[in-house]
Amino acid sequence: MEFTAKQIADLIQGRVEGDENAVINSFAKIEEGKPGAISFLSNPKYTHFIYDTQSSVVLVNEDVELEKPVKATLIRVKNAYECVAKLLQLYQSMMPKKTGISPLAFISEKATIGKDCYIAPFVYIGDGVTIGDNCTIYPNVTIYDGCKIGNRVTIHAGAVIGADGFGFAPNGEGYDKIPQIGIVVIEDDVEIGANTCVDRSTMGATVIHKGVKLDNLIQIAHNCEVGENTVMSAQVGLAGSTKIGAWCMAGGQAGFSGHIHIADKTFIGAQAGVIGNTKGGEKLLGAPAIDAKEYMRASAIFRRLPDIYREIGQLKKQIEELKKE
Amino acid sequence: MEFTAKQIADLIQGRVEGDENAVINSFAKIEEGKPGAISFLSNPKYTHFIYDTQSSVVLVNEDVELEKPVKATLIRVKNAYECVAKLLQLYQSMMPKKTGISPLAFISEKATIGKDCYIAPFVYIGDGVTIGDNCTIYPNVTIYDGCKIGNRVTIHAGAVIGADGFGFAPNGEGYDKIPQIGIVVIEDDVEIGANTCVDRSTMGATVIHKGVKLDNLIQIAHNCEVGENTVMSAQVGLAGSTKIGAWCMAGGQAGFSGHIHIADKTFIGAQAGVIGNTKGGEKLLGAPAIDAKEYMRASAIFRRLPDIYREIGQLKKQIEELKKE
Amino acid sequence: MEFTAKQIADLIQGRVEGDENAVINSFAKIEEGKPGAISFLSNPKYTHFIYDTQSSVVLVNEDVELEKPVKATLIRVKNAYECVAKLLQLYQSMMPKKTGISPLAFISEKATIGKDCYIAPFVYIGDGVTIGDNCTIYPNVTIYDGCKIGNRVTIHAGAVIGADGFGFAPNGEGYDKIPQIGIVVIEDDVEIGANTCVDRSTMGATVIHKGVKLDNLIQIAHNCEVGENTVMSAQVGLAGSTKIGAWCMAGGQAGFSGHIHIADKTFIGAQAGVIGNTKGGEKLLGAPAIDAKEYMRASAIFRRLPDIYREIGQLKKQIEELKKE
Repeated sequence: MEFTAKQIADLIQGRVEGDENAVINSFAKIEEGKPGAISFLSNPKYTHFIYDTQSSVVLVNEDVELEKPVKATLIRVKNAYECVAKLLQLYQSMMPKKTGISPLAFISEKATIGKDCYIAPFVYIGDGVTIGDNCTIYPNVTIYDGCKIGNRVTIHAGAVIGADGFGFAPNGEGYDKIPQIGIVVIEDDVEIGANTCVDRSTMGATVIHKGVKLDNLIQIAHNCEVGENTVMSAQVGLAGSTKIGAWCMAGGQAGFSGHIHIADKTFIGAQAGVIGNTKGGEKLLGAPAIDAKEYMRASAIFRRLPDIYREIGQLKKQIEELKKE
Repeated sequence: MEFTAKQIADLIQGRVEGDENAVINSFAKIEEGKPGAISFLSNPKYTHFIYDTQSSVVLVNEDVELEKPVKATLIRVKNAYECVAKLLQLYQSMMPKKTGISPLAFISEKATIGKDCYIAPFVYIGDGVTIGDNCTIYPNVTIYDGCKIGNRVTIHAGAVIGADGFGFAPNGEGYDKIPQIGIVVIEDDVEIGANTCVDRSTMGATVIHKGVKLDNLIQIAHNCEVGENTVMSAQVGLAGSTKIGAWCMAGGQAGFSGHIHIADKTFIGAQAGVIGNTKGGEKLLGAPAIDAKEYMRASAIFRRLPDIYREIGQLKKQIEELKKE
Repeated sequence: MEFTAKQIADLIQGRVEGDENAVINSFAKIEEGKPGAISFLSNPKYTHFIYDTQSSVVLVNEDVELEKPVKATLIRVKNAYECVAKLLQLYQSMMPKKTGISPLAFISEKATIGKDCYIAPFVYIGDGVTIGDNCTIYPNVTIYDGCKIGNRVTIHAGAVIGADGFGFAPNGEGYDKIPQIGIVVIEDDVEIGANTCVDRSTMGATVIHKGVKLDNLIQIAHNCEVGENTVMSAQVGLAGSTKIGAWCMAGGQAGFSGHIHIADKTFIGAQAGVIGNTKGGEKLLGAPAIDAKEYMRASAIFRRLPDIYREIGQLKKQIEELKKE
């Protein structure tokens, strides 16, 4: 498939600067541009690449001011990132889509699968599981008995939905296992990353609400709830019974104590350790997590602690001397 | 199956407050109660839910004092958490149990499997592996050649037992792999979480002792030993050759340096980074890990570091002025 | 197979101290030595084991001075760790090697597999994947469409190569998925740990360069690049578009922000959080990561923060009193 700069510009309501007949047939990162490719510039950190990129066409925001001429044809748009997303979606919609249930998957006879799903080889779907329409389940995913998956859900390879929550009661000699008789509910439009684990509830359900996006290697413990459209980066961990609100964001490797409530639109930085409730709207960092700006300011002083310690010693001495006088 | 409050109370030596003929047929979290369900109250944080829960029956500790009447029938017991565990165990013992070896599992001809095991589809069991009696191996688990699994062991989906330990010796141009010819030994009554990895030893064995419970996504490196009845939350990581004692607890995302000895009954908080030996009985937090209370106290001051820095500057000035005088 | 101490010493250019006819037929850790075994002493922490080890032969560095006689026969060598690696390699080269493609693997008809590969049961290899010669792919690995794997690559069980990068653009009501049409390229001599995830690129490729060794449960996000011979311990996480140089080392659970450049030979300690570029040669610790020594020095003072705070209060008072005078 080939398109001209003009055709692309018309599609995304952009304005061509340069050769409107420039032909593109592929996508490339701006720093790895090649003739025939379309690239985009959105992160200002990468602006210097625009002057030398080998790509034929570059999508760029209207307000980016350039300091010297560029070789590539530019398409000026309001939001280059959104436009490239649209083009990629268009591109992907023209590709053949995988559908159907692999004969190499194990689907319990007591499971229900909706319409137009793709279920890959080596997927295990247990008794009583229900899966909605238009779901994509990649290879080696395990969905334990009784879990409920909504519509348009994507689950990447190796993810485990519905393993037992981690509950053991000490009995003196060892532990009694607390049976985990609940389930996992995953609502519509959720995406679950590779090797991510969502544990079943002790009773009731662990719930991943509509529109949630979980990256890879995340741990969602039993009895947790993740609110609508919340996004979590890789390796985040939630301890049991914690409830996260809607439209929250959690950076990579962040951790949450059990039995806490995170209000809507809380932003938790990478590696933060959240140990208490939030009111919503906070940006948190550190462990235990505090206001992100406060954390960064305190961290800047942290490395000077040896100096501070020394100075206090000197101040003490000086005061002693003054007192003698 | 239906039971009356009286029947349940008799079973767990409780005392009924309210309608002893109240009928229950399911379990529910106290905050999600519904008619016909039995709930429990153990964590004091949830006490306020008892007044309005829709559940028909609530298990509650003898010593909980209530401030107003409750709708539900109460069963007073010594330890509500233990009692609900017992009821859940009873409930689960009445459910059909999965057994047998799935024809979709791969079991080496040179492996030995004990009695009454459940081995799910897409489980891989290598040459020379031995598995004891009454084990449950969930889908997509991989057990490499030569590993030894005890009795009553549960391994959740996606776990990997016996992958090569991480050993490479630099040779100038790259690395020579150090072959990992040891095995993994998992003793009786161990539970291993989903997608957790226990690496084989360079020589000898990586050992998970009797009664250990590992949550999901944990890394146990080569040559490690985890002592009896130690419990680790999700995403904990142990570097190579570290030995953990008995009855220890490690919170989520905690990390341990290599070649250290953690004595019995050490409690390591979430996200801690333990870099040295412990004597046993400590509660540790932070990275590098220190006494947990000390860490929390120091953390409370940490956020005031910018103020401290400013104040020291002011003190210096004031002392200079005093000196001049 | 049996060897005498003399035969081993000749093989590795060592010098025998003790009985050169001592016979060995197995390997053992020095602390778990047994008659007939060969052990090695490399880490000085373990020196005290040499006096009582039951092993028949111990490899030890030339320069290790012993304080009392040892029962075992010693073989003195320049580098005991390298020598044991050599012996283990020899041992392993005499063991039968797994080869061939399991009929229980799924290999797309549109994939290309090189010579002398081992592909285990329940491995999924998608359309357009190419795999070089002499690769070992353990069970339950998933390789998504289009990914390119070099020669002599080892991928441990449960690893996921080429899952979608984590890209979503908010649209007011939820998120639009940014299609991830790129691939993953894994070059020659790479080893990938169990349950590790390497995500496909938005466009172009996520690249793991020649000789890289990744431990278990690592997250490599989309558009990242990991330089030649870089080594990462378990549970490390890279956010998107970050580029790591050659010969770097990252300790367990370390995290890297997105869009940063880590120069060659940067050493990142366990649990560090790297948020900016490096120049190369640094040793970093902490989050945000700073010079490792500086971090350890500041950490030593950190626990005294409550004292520091109290002392500053006292200094203030004393100065006020001096002023009054």
